[in-house]
Amino acid sequence: MSAHKKLINDPNQVADELVEGLVEAYNGECVHVGKRSLALSSIPDGKVALLVGGGSGHEPIYHGLVGRNLADGAACGDIFAAPPPDIVLEATQAVNRGKGVLYLYGNYAGDVMNFDLGAELAEDEDIEVRTVLIWDDVCSAPPTEKHNRRGIAGLVPIVKLVGAASQSAETLDALETLAKKAVLETRSVGVSMSPGSIPATGKPTFDIDEDKIGLGMGIHGEPGVAEIPMATADELTPKMLDLIFEDFEKDEEVAALSGGDEIVLFVNSLGSTTMMECLIALRKAKEYLNAKGISIYDVIVGPLVTCQEMSGISFSFTRLDDELKALWDMPCQSVCYTKMEGHYGG
Amino acid sequence: MSAHKKLINDPNQVADELVEGLVEAYNGECVHVGKRSLALSSIPDGKVALLVGGGSGHEPIYHGLVGRNLADGAACGDIFAAPPPDIVLEATQAVNRGKGVLYLYGNYAGDVMNFDLGAELAEDEDIEVRTVLIWDDVCSAPPTEKHNRRGIAGLVPIVKLVGAASQSAETLDALETLAKKAVLETRSVGVSMSPGSIPATGKPTFDIDEDKIGLGMGIHGEPGVAEIPMATADELTPKMLDLIFEDFEKDEEVAALSGGDEIVLFVNSLGSTTMMECLIALRKAKEYLNAKGISIYDVIVGPLVTCQEMSGISFSFTRLDDELKALWDMPCQSVCYTKMEGHYGG
Repeated sequence: MSAHKKLINDPNQVADELVEGLVEAYNGECVHVGKRSLALSSIPDGKVALLVGGGSGHEPIYHGLVGRNLADGAACGDIFAAPPPDIVLEATQAVNRGKGVLYLYGNYAGDVMNFDLGAELAEDEDIEVRTVLIWDDVCSAPPTEKHNRRGIAGLVPIVKLVGAASQSAETLDALETLAKKAVLETRSVGVSMSPGSIPATGKPTFDIDEDKIGLGMGIHGEPGVAEIPMATADELTPKMLDLIFEDFEKDEEVAALSGGDEIVLFVNSLGSTTMMECLIALRKAKEYLNAKGISIYDVIVGPLVTCQEMSGISFSFTRLDDELKALWDMPCQSVCYTKMEGHYGG
Repeated sequence: MSAHKKLINDPNQVADELVEGLVEAYNGECVHVGKRSLALSSIPDGKVALLVGGGSGHEPIYHGLVGRNLADGAACGDIFAAPPPDIVLEATQAVNRGKGVLYLYGNYAGDVMNFDLGAELAEDEDIEVRTVLIWDDVCSAPPTEKHNRRGIAGLVPIVKLVGAASQSAETLDALETLAKKAVLETRSVGVSMSPGSIPATGKPTFDIDEDKIGLGMGIHGEPGVAEIPMATADELTPKMLDLIFEDFEKDEEVAALSGGDEIVLFVNSLGSTTMMECLIALRKAKEYLNAKGISIYDVIVGPLVTCQEMSGISFSFTRLDDELKALWDMPCQSVCYTKMEGHYGG
């Protein structure tokens, strides 16, 4: 198979140019900061700040989650690479308003190392920083080692909730507590069907057999649970949702999912899997959840957490209590995710 | 190249199943109607109704444009096929509240024939119907034959504006007039780089050389202006935008674009072209528009008008006057397009 045709300029400049384009997409509502960060143009004094970030190439995340009632800023890495500490620092300085900065990002070794180094630099400047890692991918480690898991699509509902909470959080402590709760209640399972391509080379990001699906395979092709034969949407969907249910059940830190629970259901495309396919899978997921007595509070569907033109899909559940429902109902707006006030089905 | 792996069930049921999934995505805010239509659950009595529709396989359009302050319903065809007249009729009946129904859809021969037959059936039941066709693709016919053009991505800003207007339109006449104005002020240019695949067969939707771009090629591979060599984002973007400027200039029915004009800029991906690429192209488009003195009132970016996992991009401009700006500022929510009140950069 030939390399995918990419509409870019210099392959080594894609991360810088896409961040410039992202700032233009915000049309004045965000500003470009330092080397490769962006921040909202207007952040109130005394606000507890929320910073996201990670490698580029997964658009519209991570930097597309900066927005109204969402993150205040983002530290942007090169393609599939963590933002270096100086970029984390410039982003931290840009969003800090004197009440501290919460770092909220996916659990990948490179990101953790660089954000931690950035936090040290920020603390040298008397900016208080806390970190909450997102580790929603249940296939990347067992429940007893859940803090070693990767962060995948669950970051979207998590950042939505924490962004809403950050609008009125009185302290960094309070926002950290809320973020940990949103992470604890969010679990995802993904599958990969075919790779995206690396923008600088056009080469595929990983290999998988033509007739296989990587169950639980990570968004860069990292190992999952199993390679299974290509399946129909109706066969695959319950298999994937079973894994989420089992995880809530086995994890002693959180209640099992049970009838009457209310969740946000997020069906994510990894890139070239079409909205058509996501909707067909959503139809089966709804049937499955109805049978279990789980109530869907709201739905997100679309290609929000991607790896170039990779093909694959993930399901994420975020269980909501009354506190999280009130936060969910706040409107938000960004290049990645936008909603009006309230929720569908309310 | 092998067939694209599609996560579906029976290849002949994809259109029905995706509409079922779409209704689930609305989580109660839409209902499934008849054979293959959907409508908002709650449409006020006496509202002038707005109906959209077209072939499936282009998700999130057309049916994903049903929503809050958007369309009241959609008549959904099979994959890449117009909805038959009985489906147009069932959708019309579902949205009619006694003040008439405006049909607003892309100008394709099959759609026009079937919607016109549906309109006749509706009129037999004393439902008044008007039709406004969307013909924004400037590469599909010269300005003197603009009513023969295809409808492409410009339908998103057009439906957004007409949906907003329909919330308070006093008569079907008034809504028709507003829709014609929104269509007249909207122009698009697209390119195709590689085909999507037909869900039922896995076969590519069209052929194009590995090193070529189809300038102005339609979203199903219909003829455009030229096949040009693969180019960089910075080379291609001005070429495409020039065609939109020339079209506004040559069309005697509309003013040329000039400094101080305010537009909504929409950068659409046809499917597997990544958000990264759209943002890089947007960056160049903004530079081009700044140099011409055109002011960007708001920006839309993303894969909203697709043809399966086709690769390609389009630019659409919608010029706004004060009336259209007020309509633009209304919030809206749907699976296809959602915004909060106001606009970016305001």
